[in-house]
Amino acid sequence: MVSIGGGAANTTSLLRLINQRAVFTEIFRLGKASRPELAQVTGLSKPTISMALADLERARLVRPVGLRTGGAGRAALLYEIRPEAGWVLAADLGRTTVRLALADLVGDVVARRHEPSRAHSYDSAREQLARMAAELVAEAGLEPGDVTVTVFGTPGIHDKESGALRLAPNLPGWERPGAVDALAGVTGSPYTVENDVDLAAVGEGAYGLGKGVSHFVLVSIGTGVGMGVVIDGGLYRGARGAAGEISYLPVGEDVPGVDRRRGVFESVASADGVVAAAARLGMTAGTAKEVFDAARRGDAVASAVVAAEADHVARALAGVIAVLDPELVVLGGGIGAQAGDLLAGPVAERLETLVALTPPRIEVSTLGADAVILGALAVGLSTARDLVFERAVAAGPA
Amino acid sequence: MVSIGGGAANTTSLLRLINQRAVFTEIFRLGKASRPELAQVTGLSKPTISMALADLERARLVRPVGLRTGGAGRAALLYEIRPEAGWVLAADLGRTTVRLALADLVGDVVARRHEPSRAHSYDSAREQLARMAAELVAEAGLEPGDVTVTVFGTPGIHDKESGALRLAPNLPGWERPGAVDALAGVTGSPYTVENDVDLAAVGEGAYGLGKGVSHFVLVSIGTGVGMGVVIDGGLYRGARGAAGEISYLPVGEDVPGVDRRRGVFESVASADGVVAAAARLGMTAGTAKEVFDAARRGDAVASAVVAAEADHVARALAGVIAVLDPELVVLGGGIGAQAGDLLAGPVAERLETLVALTPPRIEVSTLGADAVILGALAVGLSTARDLVFERAVAAGPA
Repeated sequence: MVSIGGGAANTTSLLRLINQRAVFTEIFRLGKASRPELAQVTGLSKPTISMALADLERARLVRPVGLRTGGAGRAALLYEIRPEAGWVLAADLGRTTVRLALADLVGDVVARRHEPSRAHSYDSAREQLARMAAELVAEAGLEPGDVTVTVFGTPGIHDKESGALRLAPNLPGWERPGAVDALAGVTGSPYTVENDVDLAAVGEGAYGLGKGVSHFVLVSIGTGVGMGVVIDGGLYRGARGAAGEISYLPVGEDVPGVDRRRGVFESVASADGVVAAAARLGMTAGTAKEVFDAARRGDAVASAVVAAEADHVARALAGVIAVLDPELVVLGGGIGAQAGDLLAGPVAERLETLVALTPPRIEVSTLGADAVILGALAVGLSTARDLVFERAVAAGPA
Repeated sequence: MVSIGGGAANTTSLLRLINQRAVFTEIFRLGKASRPELAQVTGLSKPTISMALADLERARLVRPVGLRTGGAGRAALLYEIRPEAGWVLAADLGRTTVRLALADLVGDVVARRHEPSRAHSYDSAREQLARMAAELVAEAGLEPGDVTVTVFGTPGIHDKESGALRLAPNLPGWERPGAVDALAGVTGSPYTVENDVDLAAVGEGAYGLGKGVSHFVLVSIGTGVGMGVVIDGGLYRGARGAAGEISYLPVGEDVPGVDRRRGVFESVASADGVVAAAARLGMTAGTAKEVFDAARRGDAVASAVVAAEADHVARALAGVIAVLDPELVVLGGGIGAQAGDLLAGPVAERLETLVALTPPRIEVSTLGADAVILGALAVGLSTARDLVFERAVAAGPA
């Protein structure tokens, strides 16, 4: 059925808009594209493409950018998205660090910064976000109203009914009803709030190891644990946004001192859990990194802790794989980044005995601390693309 | 972008086909529909609807069926799918029973039968399927060539590359490359092979507790264990068709005599596992049903076995819920059907202590032994709808 908003399918102006959107979307996807290329990928005629391009140029959404030469026949004029047609602000409100980045509509980051997080209170966290956002916008030479969309990555789950953040004990004050809604004031733009690990998974899909993989998971292990689930190339959130909340997986129940309220798996596998496991074996370590460094030097106790960590992770993944059958498991988060090289091999080996089929690939994220911000930019760019098109269309006859 | 197979969007005949398909799909969905109703749901004009209906009637895909009266204004002529426009054969190749059903294009079952399964050898199973299919087709007064599509439900995973069935130890011979491909001869129609528990989940979605639920799982516990995953209203199969293969969940590892090759969770939670658990406590039971019946009579040992079973199921579900965050968990399979009433309460109660948010609803399937066949019919009807439309269109100018 060909219909938008109940209109008839064979209206010329409707088709013209549909064609404009198709051409805009394809240029967005391709980066740069010529008339013949656009005709090929859309199935539209060259005159139709020319008309759509003229409309899009008039709406200041695309611009000619040069000639494609080198092939047979005439050189083809190339079009690209006008970078300044929209702006995306991405924020990663982490437990220890706040990161922000501002990108144009083609995804080029024009300003970015990070600071130690002031998440000890809700007000200070919100003020910090607002100040950093204003600084970034000014640094880019923009007005606050220029931001097309803002995407916030936070721990926990954004409960849209109450406007509160759930399951985010490290962000005190955000569990209050309406706390999340106050983010509206941070930039004044439309905004979305996503789970940080979910955004990291989107980042992997757009820029990392998940590129081109239909079904994968990003398992983040660090100060907490979490998982982002990508199905058919898109983020799967679950019925209440709690898909991938693997901190509560019943893995490690026999470990002494396990904290059930926090979640069994998180309690044993997170950074704290690694430090506690080392302490039980007589090793004094201030951080999980110290344990991993010692294991790399061949320390026997530290190596035993790493082996136990790999066992916990493998058993958690056995459950994930049984449920989801992903093509790929990406290890991320602080421990994933610091110790992925130590863990990936033993985890894969242990999985051989735990799963029905050959285990999927287990790989270590290469995006590091930027994964959440990159995912937020990917989400924001997709939203901004739709918003700028709709605004340009609403602004007047195309 | 409005385009089929690369053609231009504004071709009249293409629009006519698109409109026909839209009208056909909506009548399929609504059962019976009038011109004004179809105009409303498709957004097409009444003259366009009239033309599409005339085309569909000429192709013998729909027929007028009477008048809708009682409202204001003129009585409206109603159209419905012509039931004989297509036929779906559904087969459930179970470990103990083979079930077949034949339905017309509106889903009415015109013939069905079941027999003890001859799955002890591949050849006998295939011969049994072919004979039963031929009997059903004859009983309905049809020719073999009349079947539009056949859907087979089997244990295990259909590996499309090798044409073999994997993870189905109870169907000897089907692990041979090409074994599944030989099902082509059973009815001669196009066919698909789906995991039986996946089909049961589709059945729940179409006719059972999953109706209208976007994200749910059907957990089947009986001679084996398995899970069908429905995401956004559609079956999720995983990268290799192994999503929901929960027999290998690491739940019950401390149970004596657990069979790791078969899968830890299946080994402890399936019917055999229940009988073995009873034996360990000194109760001699031939079947799991005997244990559940004894528990219903208040037998202390049997009740302890049921409590342990509920604990295993709850711990497996804790993993499933952490990964997927479903709205609803449906308990099915033999044990689900026989003992769902005994298990659902204790499972839900135990889950309260195992998961992060309030547990999802835990309910017992009401479809019983028909769940797989109903799912196969639902899959088949959807495929048949597309096939008969394409054939009618290919057959001549609409």
